[in-house]
Amino acid sequence: MSDTMRTVNIGLIGLGTVGGGTARTIEHNRDEYLRAYGIDLRIAKACALDPEQAAAAGIPAEAFTTDWHDVVADPAVDIVVELIGGEHPATEIFEAAFAAGKHVVTANKALLGRNMERLCALAREHGVQLRCEASAGGGIPIVAALEYSLAGNRMLTVAGILNGTTNYILSRMASEGSDFADVLADAQRLGYAEADPSADVDGFDAASKVAILSSIAFHTRVTTDDVYMQGIRDISPVDIDEARKMGRTIKLLGIARMTEDGIDARVHPAMIPSDHMLASVNGAMNAVFAVGDSVGETMFYGAGAGSYPTASAVVGDVLELARAIARGERPEAEPEPFERRVAIRPIEELRCRYYLRLTAARADDALPAVADTLEAFKIAVAEARQVVDGGERSVIVITEEAREGDVQAACAELAKLASIERVASLIRIEDTAAWAEGAEANE
Amino acid sequence: MSDTMRTVNIGLIGLGTVGGGTARTIEHNRDEYLRAYGIDLRIAKACALDPEQAAAAGIPAEAFTTDWHDVVADPAVDIVVELIGGEHPATEIFEAAFAAGKHVVTANKALLGRNMERLCALAREHGVQLRCEASAGGGIPIVAALEYSLAGNRMLTVAGILNGTTNYILSRMASEGSDFADVLADAQRLGYAEADPSADVDGFDAASKVAILSSIAFHTRVTTDDVYMQGIRDISPVDIDEARKMGRTIKLLGIARMTEDGIDARVHPAMIPSDHMLASVNGAMNAVFAVGDSVGETMFYGAGAGSYPTASAVVGDVLELARAIARGERPEAEPEPFERRVAIRPIEELRCRYYLRLTAARADDALPAVADTLEAFKIAVAEARQVVDGGERSVIVITEEAREGDVQAACAELAKLASIERVASLIRIEDTAAWAEGAEANE
Repeated sequence: MSDTMRTVNIGLIGLGTVGGGTARTIEHNRDEYLRAYGIDLRIAKACALDPEQAAAAGIPAEAFTTDWHDVVADPAVDIVVELIGGEHPATEIFEAAFAAGKHVVTANKALLGRNMERLCALAREHGVQLRCEASAGGGIPIVAALEYSLAGNRMLTVAGILNGTTNYILSRMASEGSDFADVLADAQRLGYAEADPSADVDGFDAASKVAILSSIAFHTRVTTDDVYMQGIRDISPVDIDEARKMGRTIKLLGIARMTEDGIDARVHPAMIPSDHMLASVNGAMNAVFAVGDSVGETMFYGAGAGSYPTASAVVGDVLELARAIARGERPEAEPEPFERRVAIRPIEELRCRYYLRLTAARADDALPAVADTLEAFKIAVAEARQVVDGGERSVIVITEEAREGDVQAACAELAKLASIERVASLIRIEDTAAWAEGAEANE
Repeated sequence: MSDTMRTVNIGLIGLGTVGGGTARTIEHNRDEYLRAYGIDLRIAKACALDPEQAAAAGIPAEAFTTDWHDVVADPAVDIVVELIGGEHPATEIFEAAFAAGKHVVTANKALLGRNMERLCALAREHGVQLRCEASAGGGIPIVAALEYSLAGNRMLTVAGILNGTTNYILSRMASEGSDFADVLADAQRLGYAEADPSADVDGFDAASKVAILSSIAFHTRVTTDDVYMQGIRDISPVDIDEARKMGRTIKLLGIARMTEDGIDARVHPAMIPSDHMLASVNGAMNAVFAVGDSVGETMFYGAGAGSYPTASAVVGDVLELARAIARGERPEAEPEPFERRVAIRPIEELRCRYYLRLTAARADDALPAVADTLEAFKIAVAEARQVVDGGERSVIVITEEAREGDVQAACAELAKLASIERVASLIRIEDTAAWAEGAEANE
């Protein structure tokens, strides 16, 4: 045992999947923390609406409360751990904890995606820290990497697979050739997707994480509303098959790049080379590329969600605060993290190659009209052909590099053509090599 | 700019590949550190034997010295950055810097692989920190992940590709079907391998990193001498080809596992499933799996060497110290990091499947005698067959799970058989799934 020993008390608000995993992780490994760091980590108070959750998490009756105010007000509590998610009462918990001089550790991506700047500033005003490793990438230590280990770099890109549910669905669609709706239903049955899957499949969850990670990486404010968002509902087996023929794999990516024209921040399905490392990230796993001018490409891989992996990130944050407290320090927030205001580049200014799938009313006649329409918008076509899948006839178009605004406008016109039923898919062909443009590494 | 601004002075010893990259990284990004962290990071003093290196690194004449004592003795210097490598005078530099109350940041894996415990204890005695992110995995932030982000876990395994030179050689052998010697010569010509390649190709470099990473992960002392070591000189195109037929890829792995019988620490070529993420790590890149009981499998990927990537790790460590200094804290070493003494499990106790390639004097007769010999050691054979490669006849044996001690003893007997010339290759078939045994994650 260490020569300095200090009890650090945490107050745990929320005992669901992540909160329960956090309580159990601390219980399992308490002796290890004592031995390795001289810290006796205790859950002094824990709050949930359902007392049965407390029992399942091993919280003794005397430490349990159904009122979060009891946790924040407890003078023994050094660190408040908020694991209920959502904007309210999480916001009020943060405010009350800061006002009481307590540090906050959270996994709340929805809240931080919208209000990170204000809450970090508030923590700083009160001389305490707000730590959020678990809010992006689950157990993957990407937040700490961007805040500390890679701090010597000018960051160029943070991009990757940030949502496990959609990666699980796309992985199964690719391996089984199944439809989105069928795999989603099965994923819901197996607990990989929520009853209301919108936050995952429409990209909101990943967009929150893009907002958090790009705020940290680029030292500026990016909110969820700044992030362009397109989900995976329109991805069909035909698209996955066509991608495969091109040597590509479809993944839902969250991408944040620092460009000369501002921050390019977006979530959408993208075709990436099948030999790219992200292409082999399957199932519910997450992986994030972080590219800096000195370090070049790095990648961080692990479970992006789940009880114990997310608990790992929460307890890592808790222990870092606890170790500072045990050394007799008062861990303070860093100065003005989001002072810079970098413009967000509108999605219309994105330039890449595009894959379009148009369902054709009379397929035989569609190609010339499609070509004419694209030409009118000065979009060069690399390849255009018809495919028949079951009864459905489609036109597949691969463009040369084009401007998103032009492609969007062209799609609106394509949808009006008599020979075209609708624009069924628009998938960006991501230039992953561009993520490392400007890196001095690997010379 | 931030409301608190503080100049932090570093003393840089060594201006070679990594030292030069460190100086240039700081020069490129100084404004960013000032803006983001309120830190004016300056190289107050820099030391090299060759003044031309100083000029190339942009060090002004008045800050340059050829005597490292000048750096350590400079009262302006807050942090000493040691980037000369080797045991001496690096050891003396550490001792002098600690005695002068200065923190040390280093990339010196050879020194730390042998003396980490003593040097960390010495830093602690003097109330300063020794930081070594760059000593394992180059730019990959694996040290910080183990020290901080994953601290809530009981770590089970740290394993991966820890040497870029050997991975470059094996990757080219696999893609080109070339011999080890030819690729090594070409790698030396291209600067991927040293004139004396022994530290890389014989596994010493990777073993140092295994010692450092397992010491941190398992909170105990592991030194380079504790790590079993086998290099890649014996790997032939036949082995790579046979592995491919088994759906496997040969990589030089560094592996540290906490087992019930002690720490299993080893560096050797291993056959891993070709769809394992480490199998797609090619060229000079590194990747490390870190498996914890809560987080499950995580992987960290990036450039394991090179001027700028290694500088990224060095500057990350420097900035973390600098940020604490700027907050008015005195960053202290953690208490007693290596107090626990966990036994090292002897390599003889390893149990896995083995691939053996025996060059046969008279191949037609060799199989029965080989089978008899293995049976005498109670080693079950899954597959045994003859292959002819050019003029060379070999016997390939794949065993069922066996004890290393028995396999080593059997190989000594096999070499004595009249029908066998020599045991040309012994390659372990790594059970990568076992790395996550005991994890509660991903339930």
